[in-house]
Amino acid sequence: MHNQQHGGNITTFAKEIGCRVEEVIDLSSNINFVKPKIEVDFNRLNISPYPNYERLTNAIAKLYKVKNVQIELFNGATSAIYALFRALALEEVTLYAPLYLEYERAAKIFGYRIEQINRFNGLEKEVKANSLVVFVNPSTPDGKFYNLKRVMNKWMQKGCTIIIDESFLDFTPYSSLAPYIENYSKLYILKSMTKFYSAAGIRIGAIISHRENIEKLKAKEPIWKISEFDSCYLQSALKDNTFMQRSREINQKNRQQLTKILQKSPTICSIYPSSSNFVMIKLQGVDAYQFQEQLTPFKIMVRNCSNFKYLDSHYVRVAVKEEKSLKVLEKALNKKE
Amino acid sequence: MHNQQHGGNITTFAKEIGCRVEEVIDLSSNINFVKPKIEVDFNRLNISPYPNYERLTNAIAKLYKVKNVQIELFNGATSAIYALFRALALEEVTLYAPLYLEYERAAKIFGYRIEQINRFNGLEKEVKANSLVVFVNPSTPDGKFYNLKRVMNKWMQKGCTIIIDESFLDFTPYSSLAPYIENYSKLYILKSMTKFYSAAGIRIGAIISHRENIEKLKAKEPIWKISEFDSCYLQSALKDNTFMQRSREINQKNRQQLTKILQKSPTICSIYPSSSNFVMIKLQGVDAYQFQEQLTPFKIMVRNCSNFKYLDSHYVRVAVKEEKSLKVLEKALNKKE
Repeated sequence: MHNQQHGGNITTFAKEIGCRVEEVIDLSSNINFVKPKIEVDFNRLNISPYPNYERLTNAIAKLYKVKNVQIELFNGATSAIYALFRALALEEVTLYAPLYLEYERAAKIFGYRIEQINRFNGLEKEVKANSLVVFVNPSTPDGKFYNLKRVMNKWMQKGCTIIIDESFLDFTPYSSLAPYIENYSKLYILKSMTKFYSAAGIRIGAIISHRENIEKLKAKEPIWKISEFDSCYLQSALKDNTFMQRSREINQKNRQQLTKILQKSPTICSIYPSSSNFVMIKLQGVDAYQFQEQLTPFKIMVRNCSNFKYLDSHYVRVAVKEEKSLKVLEKALNKKE
Repeated sequence: MHNQQHGGNITTFAKEIGCRVEEVIDLSSNINFVKPKIEVDFNRLNISPYPNYERLTNAIAKLYKVKNVQIELFNGATSAIYALFRALALEEVTLYAPLYLEYERAAKIFGYRIEQINRFNGLEKEVKANSLVVFVNPSTPDGKFYNLKRVMNKWMQKGCTIIIDESFLDFTPYSSLAPYIENYSKLYILKSMTKFYSAAGIRIGAIISHRENIEKLKAKEPIWKISEFDSCYLQSALKDNTFMQRSREINQKNRQQLTKILQKSPTICSIYPSSSNFVMIKLQGVDAYQFQEQLTPFKIMVRNCSNFKYLDSHYVRVAVKEEKSLKVLEKALNKKE
């Protein structure tokens, strides 16, 4: 099942180990465990009329310091990726891998020739002129943030169409490249609004680009697509002025704690530097399946990274979560087999 | 603004006449005014994890007596129309008009040559072999239900790909053509799940077709797209066993009441037969703009049908609503200018 290629299928996991979904300690998905303050009574929302996306679009525009005409909303980042690959209809794409799996799937579906560059070996490798390039920053599944200025210039000189996926950027103190859309007309910034804002159950993603690009995308999109529930959730989340700072601080603190826990385990030989709400580790002596087996009695689920390009079954992604869950992980890792 | 081509933009209307949105008597949109019993506490819903659509798909499959592998869900019927026109990629489409405007828009966007047949003049006109045909049943903007058996046979003999849009069928006592997908592999049944189930703010539509067709559609769709809020709303609505019958009875009763009110108005020369939750009228002596002006002091909004093919500014669609609103309409129509 396609769904199981990604992390976070806790329903299946709970069924397999015979517990309730609520009992699972889900360290496999990368949804922010810090929650924004939501001041909406969803039970009293008027969902009868057709939705209007003006306020939501304005709020996202304000957040990323762009104009509302430079944004098109989609039902999550994956929907945005598919729409963009389809609309661009280019011949060749360079994926800086490993990266979010849906990029490769979209590239295949829409008939792109795929080049992959192993970003762990540096970003210097040449890309084809006028091709599409995709960079996820911070990257998945490791969470590393890259300063892209130099490589961006190279791509622009080659006339490439550029997708920068900043779905995890709000976890970091770094600036978005969104304002660059004014300078380069072939730049698309992609944002998942469900990861940092802690609700994969709501489906909102955004593409930010030059006004003309957005108009072209809009022209092939249905007029209504985002749920009024989702729209109100996100609008309320964006009104929580302290959330971004609070969320960054707590995630950073707990990421450090998680790192310390992981460092103590003899089965983990590397911990990759992360600016995001997850950490990638390399295992020694055990593989991801055995590592998961060690955690299963504790109802902990982690993300086996073996289906990512350039990674194998020795790589695992572990999400940053609340202290209580990290303590259980610590206990599970300390347990002698 | 594209949005204003459709009914139901009550936000703009309220702003124009200087009242609150809640005060508007919206007879312009075709959302069921009878509400299903919803037993979900949306404030306590766990929207953190990625959604899983199995239960929702099963519930819709049960409702329309098909298998879950014969269904693909979309973010509303309009999203479904766009996806289907894009995926089919045929050259020519015959639209039985007037019909829901987004069909013509989708046909244009995806490069179809468009033939239109005026269904008010009968369904006998020939269609091109192997073309796509689209029929909305009950039809919009008039709500007429057609027995399609004869014309279906004709289309099938010609090898046409067939889209039957049954978004308003649940308002009627008539049977869905969904089970026919077993007999004819080029048949697609389209369902909006937001009109009868009374929530345009939730975005769910379904395409029902042969398993192989659904697999082909699924292959180009993102894995997550429907909101967990929306999914839970609809699942709960479908569990309300008395809703369908209750809704049909109340709508029929109020449609009769609405018809009586409309019959008394000297500015209305025809009332079209409807099996749905709206009624189309033809005006005499005044046009749709003047008719709307007469209703505006009463905060009533109706749907000017002049942008539908084969109709002009003498046609107006009026929604079936609760008795109180119909009484206000009666008062507005009785008022001497």
